[in-house]
Amino acid sequence: MLTEEEKQYALKKYVEFLQHPSISATGEGIRETASWLKEFMEELGIKATIEETGGHPVVYGEANNGGDKTLLVYNHYDVQPVDPLNEWKYPPFSAIIENGHIYGRGASDNKGVLIARLIAFSKYKGNLSFKFLVEGEEEIGSVNLPNYVERKKPKADAVIMEGAGLDTKGRPMIVLGVKGLLYVQLTVRTASKDIHSSNAPIVYNPVWELIKILNEIYDGERVKLKGFYNDIEPLSDEMKELLAKLDIDMEELRKSLGAYKLKGNIREIYIEPTCNIDGIYSGYIGKGSKTIVPAYAFAKIDFRLVPNQDPKKVFSSLLEVVKDRAEVEVFGMEKPVRTSPNAKVVKAMINSAKKVYSLDPVVIPNSAGTQPMGVFYDLGIREIVSAIGVGTPSSNAHAPNENVKLENFYKAIEHAYEFFNEYSSV
Amino acid sequence: MLTEEEKQYALKKYVEFLQHPSISATGEGIRETASWLKEFMEELGIKATIEETGGHPVVYGEANNGGDKTLLVYNHYDVQPVDPLNEWKYPPFSAIIENGHIYGRGASDNKGVLIARLIAFSKYKGNLSFKFLVEGEEEIGSVNLPNYVERKKPKADAVIMEGAGLDTKGRPMIVLGVKGLLYVQLTVRTASKDIHSSNAPIVYNPVWELIKILNEIYDGERVKLKGFYNDIEPLSDEMKELLAKLDIDMEELRKSLGAYKLKGNIREIYIEPTCNIDGIYSGYIGKGSKTIVPAYAFAKIDFRLVPNQDPKKVFSSLLEVVKDRAEVEVFGMEKPVRTSPNAKVVKAMINSAKKVYSLDPVVIPNSAGTQPMGVFYDLGIREIVSAIGVGTPSSNAHAPNENVKLENFYKAIEHAYEFFNEYSSV
Repeated sequence: MLTEEEKQYALKKYVEFLQHPSISATGEGIRETASWLKEFMEELGIKATIEETGGHPVVYGEANNGGDKTLLVYNHYDVQPVDPLNEWKYPPFSAIIENGHIYGRGASDNKGVLIARLIAFSKYKGNLSFKFLVEGEEEIGSVNLPNYVERKKPKADAVIMEGAGLDTKGRPMIVLGVKGLLYVQLTVRTASKDIHSSNAPIVYNPVWELIKILNEIYDGERVKLKGFYNDIEPLSDEMKELLAKLDIDMEELRKSLGAYKLKGNIREIYIEPTCNIDGIYSGYIGKGSKTIVPAYAFAKIDFRLVPNQDPKKVFSSLLEVVKDRAEVEVFGMEKPVRTSPNAKVVKAMINSAKKVYSLDPVVIPNSAGTQPMGVFYDLGIREIVSAIGVGTPSSNAHAPNENVKLENFYKAIEHAYEFFNEYSSV
Repeated sequence: MLTEEEKQYALKKYVEFLQHPSISATGEGIRETASWLKEFMEELGIKATIEETGGHPVVYGEANNGGDKTLLVYNHYDVQPVDPLNEWKYPPFSAIIENGHIYGRGASDNKGVLIARLIAFSKYKGNLSFKFLVEGEEEIGSVNLPNYVERKKPKADAVIMEGAGLDTKGRPMIVLGVKGLLYVQLTVRTASKDIHSSNAPIVYNPVWELIKILNEIYDGERVKLKGFYNDIEPLSDEMKELLAKLDIDMEELRKSLGAYKLKGNIREIYIEPTCNIDGIYSGYIGKGSKTIVPAYAFAKIDFRLVPNQDPKKVFSSLLEVVKDRAEVEVFGMEKPVRTSPNAKVVKAMINSAKKVYSLDPVVIPNSAGTQPMGVFYDLGIREIVSAIGVGTPSSNAHAPNENVKLENFYKAIEHAYEFFNEYSSV
């Protein structure tokens, strides 16, 4: 159990971290936050360095405790953009505490998690060695991480990724894999300037042209790209069993997400690949009316992929459809991964979770979201798990009023501490 | 011919008018501009009043010269919004003059036209009586004009509408009718907040839902609304003849519009109804990537209608498609109209144009754009023509860097003056 003093120190560092903006999409505050983090890690006795990647730097740290096992702790210090700003009840980087919750961009995803692990590390007295790899580009698809990891080749027996947090019933989630990702922007340009819409019979409208392409990518139900579903790995019996155990209350989940209606089955969140439009823009979007044929239109699209889909193959199929009809920019490409439920790191994680939460954890074959597990898998590491988080479905990750219940933050410190001990001894 | 002094006075008032922002979509500067205009009209000896409409006011003026004919001069003092602001080389309300061109929002559409007519009026010495009806909502679909005109019932023998300007070859255009308009915004809401896109398998994406609706409205070539093409009035032989005479250089037009490619035939601009997307928005549209399922999506759509399509019927068919899947806002509904080529006002317009420009004017059955001719037609007036403009296809109406060649502005003053004389004597 944490002392009051330990809690106060942990909270102080959490607030400081949240008050450092670090928006990877725009670059705002990235370098300053990396420096702050390096200093904090040094304060805890970790040998830390800021390492260049060609993009936003990695904060890398090592602590050799003399044992024969090394745990690599992966996190990210960057956060999502904050818009729509007017929907925040407190400024997104103010770290205001209200009713036992802390509010701020990154509170849940994933500054709280990193602080919890670092505080737990500082309490840990065993002989497990640590490597901390904290990147600054997770929210923009970890663009430079694969090259960085390939060059650095950090040796480790197991990896713990950014944690999945708690489900609607407060049970800790242990996630054995990740979905992959392909994030692209398609831009159609039909003119050098907006044109009076009286010319619509003779000029091409970029939105209609974009919609034609989008209709060829997705039919409203299924992705239409060539071979998209072909490589999907069938679920193993163990995985099917894990999924069958899921007993998420859909109505509760719906409310916490703020969705008016849900579709499908909760299992699909883990096993169904998607084609999602994150944003679309063209022409006049202010108040009232303006009669123009816009000069250009764009859409931002993410494909979430399941094992064994290959983002590179999906991208090729996409290019075959788009041809020269749109400009294509890639903002992220990540491999899907699934780790065996029998791995040591998984067992240690389950045991420590039971101890701290007095509840059976929820074990999931892979996350609904994406984390760059693939780069560690490619190093030959087969013990990779995503767990120890601070958020819940109502934490508003990626949305306004992101928040974390402080109780969950303190629990995460305990969980990390117990896990380090369990894992050293298995 | 205008004296230097007359030109200077006209230009001074033109600059002043342009320096008054009057964006009907947002309301910016509307009341101030209406006051300025009323004072200017009074300065010229017109009995002017500001009349409430329930929206932006009408500036209404009368000048009784004792003859047996009254001409109603219709214009508007409002302008389109100015975005994208960063594409303007001068601030949109600076009225900068460079190389014999004046730059500013409204220069062509249609502040220059109104100034030209008012200056011509002040020179006119005949017995034709005038009514000036200058509205402030033309660019947002003349929402309150029908009710205003129906209440006011201004008597007149003929109406001249906002002028069509000059074609790519510098020939004055005389337009005998207008396309109709239906302008709507469709908004699809699927959640109360943006949701992390890892939930895409179980939540509805508002963009895909919006696209489903858009696909039911338009197939990329033709409007799919029920009965949309049924009421279209067949072209009369006279109208076919007018269209056959059109000899617009498509390549020149393409360049001046800034379009990369044109489709169809120039005649379609006058006889083909359209479904155009003026703007679309959803989710994250900043730099880089953000992985969300947006909470809502909207599209602004204008339908341009040809005689005898009825905007109310089109709207009903639209609602049948949309059902309860989107919120529908209406920003404009205008009837299409075509006046006979044998009307007196048309003959006077053609004769005066020939005199001033020493070129045969281009006579067109109806405009490609929309003006609220329908409300005057509904009063029983059958002599309605749109002519005497200052713009050309490269004037960038509705786009950044709207501009007018000063020479064309002065010519328009002369044309209006000659027209007043011609029309009094036919």
